[in-house]
Amino acid sequence: MKVALLGCGVVGSQVVRLLQEQADDLAARVGAPLELAGVAVRRLGRKRDSDVDPALLTTDAESLVTREDVDIVVEVIGGIEPARSLILSAISAGKSIVTANKALLAEDGATVHGSAKKHGGDLYYEASVAGAIPLLRPLRESMAGDRVHRVLGIVNGTTNYILDKMDSTGASFSDALEEAQALGYAEADPTADVEGFDAAAKAAILAGLAFHTRVTAADVHREGITEITATDVSSAKAMGYVIKLLAICARSDDGRSVGVRVHPAMIPRTHPLAGVREAYNAVFVEAESAGQLMFYGKGAGGAPTASAVLGDIVAVARNRIAGTHGPQESTYADLVVHPMGETVTRYHVSLDVADKPGVLATVAEMFAKHDVSIQIVRQEGRGDDAQLVLVTHRASDAALSATIAGLRELDIVRDVTSVMRVEGEESS
Amino acid sequence: MKVALLGCGVVGSQVVRLLQEQADDLAARVGAPLELAGVAVRRLGRKRDSDVDPALLTTDAESLVTREDVDIVVEVIGGIEPARSLILSAISAGKSIVTANKALLAEDGATVHGSAKKHGGDLYYEASVAGAIPLLRPLRESMAGDRVHRVLGIVNGTTNYILDKMDSTGASFSDALEEAQALGYAEADPTADVEGFDAAAKAAILAGLAFHTRVTAADVHREGITEITATDVSSAKAMGYVIKLLAICARSDDGRSVGVRVHPAMIPRTHPLAGVREAYNAVFVEAESAGQLMFYGKGAGGAPTASAVLGDIVAVARNRIAGTHGPQESTYADLVVHPMGETVTRYHVSLDVADKPGVLATVAEMFAKHDVSIQIVRQEGRGDDAQLVLVTHRASDAALSATIAGLRELDIVRDVTSVMRVEGEESS
Repeated sequence: MKVALLGCGVVGSQVVRLLQEQADDLAARVGAPLELAGVAVRRLGRKRDSDVDPALLTTDAESLVTREDVDIVVEVIGGIEPARSLILSAISAGKSIVTANKALLAEDGATVHGSAKKHGGDLYYEASVAGAIPLLRPLRESMAGDRVHRVLGIVNGTTNYILDKMDSTGASFSDALEEAQALGYAEADPTADVEGFDAAAKAAILAGLAFHTRVTAADVHREGITEITATDVSSAKAMGYVIKLLAICARSDDGRSVGVRVHPAMIPRTHPLAGVREAYNAVFVEAESAGQLMFYGKGAGGAPTASAVLGDIVAVARNRIAGTHGPQESTYADLVVHPMGETVTRYHVSLDVADKPGVLATVAEMFAKHDVSIQIVRQEGRGDDAQLVLVTHRASDAALSATIAGLRELDIVRDVTSVMRVEGEESS
Repeated sequence: MKVALLGCGVVGSQVVRLLQEQADDLAARVGAPLELAGVAVRRLGRKRDSDVDPALLTTDAESLVTREDVDIVVEVIGGIEPARSLILSAISAGKSIVTANKALLAEDGATVHGSAKKHGGDLYYEASVAGAIPLLRPLRESMAGDRVHRVLGIVNGTTNYILDKMDSTGASFSDALEEAQALGYAEADPTADVEGFDAAAKAAILAGLAFHTRVTAADVHREGITEITATDVSSAKAMGYVIKLLAICARSDDGRSVGVRVHPAMIPRTHPLAGVREAYNAVFVEAESAGQLMFYGKGAGGAPTASAVLGDIVAVARNRIAGTHGPQESTYADLVVHPMGETVTRYHVSLDVADKPGVLATVAEMFAKHDVSIQIVRQEGRGDDAQLVLVTHRASDAALSATIAGLRELDIVRDVTSVMRVEGEESS
């Protein structure tokens, strides 16, 4: 079995290392040796982490992926192009594909999956979501006999590291980000992580697998964590919550549509996701028969991601030897992705209000007007002002937004200091 | 695709229900409808939870499993016989097998797997360990490109429920057991659970998958939880530990042998397994490249177990349609299972000693004589007596046993009140 590798960076060099170091074990597990046929890189001269034979390096990726002796093409370049064109060429040439490319699958999965279907080839992508955690295979195969209701995931290690630091040390967002950057958990330009783009791509892939439907990155409602303050974190803490950036994929109550969203949310400290510290990832799945499941592990890094890539290489190699292929993309359910306004959840709202009689009544009336029912109110005087903290029962995002807009119009409301969704409770 | 079901109890009746309720989804995922061909039961007249068509019931299981129109045989009877004979007949007749039978696979996996290999048929058993948690497929497939070092699992919900109650309420073992029985978490005869037999069978299956070798239930060192006292639990708590019944499968330091054991152990409260409450299961995996992974969910119950069975049914049905089969048992590594004495871990030892000068020196000398190094000592006076609590560095079980035997011989040691292994710390 000959393997062509596209990209030899952090993940690619680990794939090379593992193919070499574990050659005997891999051969025994596949039933044939896995041989590295070539490694496509952008520049030949660059110093690399791995001991890849320089004779295997090439800058001509297009020729490599269609070379007759190549069986499996592993793509760890990332991004849309040239990854898409190379993968499509490889599929057309009858190769099996292993990729870690979340952006491509989330933005244009239709083209890539469609081509794999047409040519009857394998397209495996375990490493694209939550790195080392075996997650896509369980969703695609182990849960194929169950009905998934909801997926709640911490799928971005950078933002979890930042929020965890803010929670454990009281740091501000910018201080925590700086620390994450110093430790290599965050990029110099952290936008893709802190604005939720990375998590949104993963949410699209998870939702598609969980609900057997097509979801693209554009379908995902996305909010980042840059507005989270140390005060938000400490008031969440005071109420027994922790703030996490969650990727949430949920079936609507009638089962006819799905909502897919990435945003910071409060979850109870007793929830299994609350204990996910530092840069770890975890995905919580609620299914009709299985009940609550959680998958936990490292979501990024060279070796962890390479572990997932290698698992896929073994699987597609076995399939090739058996003359078959694994399950193809399943989108038969063809569900509508509903707009964010139709999402139903609970909300935690903080208001600065004038401290005088009748304020609570006026505020409560605004919630009632939009059919948003209040579960908890806490009022704290602060001289002339008072702080009102409210937690609602389940309400639609549209109703909540209308409520907030109405509150901002009220004279007695000085400021809406924070609005955050509350997830992971029985009643939510 | 015609499915024959052996057994229609707690799990079987849920399998019937799901096959009926989710027929359309299952057909779309498989690519062909799944039809129930027959259900073998012991007695025809019994009242059942499911709406199984009485015309499908039969007491002649042997004829059902070899019936020409049957494609897939699902065994949820449990126990060694008649399950083994029926499965072997079905395999010989070319059927694909889905089973939840941990006892059979742990005691005589060689015969069953051997027959499946010989006839080229599928034998899937996701439900046999940790119920609904997708665990065997990830170990067998997702991690096929990695090297697993260690598996630490809470794989028995009954004992986890009991230990969790003891931890959270201070209850005694017998009171917690009674509560578990009242709630249906424990059987009237709880031996299989509380003595660790159930966990040992699962440990054997996990070790075989994780290390690509054959392990049987007889290879597993087994200790139950009946001797755990409320005092053990509270002293563990005082030191930041929680006591769990763990199934531990570990490669030796030189990689040439494996140890497989089930026993109560202290783990730090910061360990991800420490937060596994009530009757939930979780399995923690340490692999060379992937790092630390955890899988969490419901380990038992009709619907959760049926979810895992259905996932396997979908997989073997897809394989049948594609004219192929999934990965077969992988035992190429053929590792030795080392005896418990060679297991290396840390220990927590409590002693009642005479409260006089020189006692600690004498005790410490006994540990040193057997090359067991002490990490922490805590001494508390109690009038004439004192309590000594010691935590060791890593030592072999044989060395620790010799130390304990030596301590018992000392006049100044009134009693060895507790010896417990400490797991889940970086240094262990």
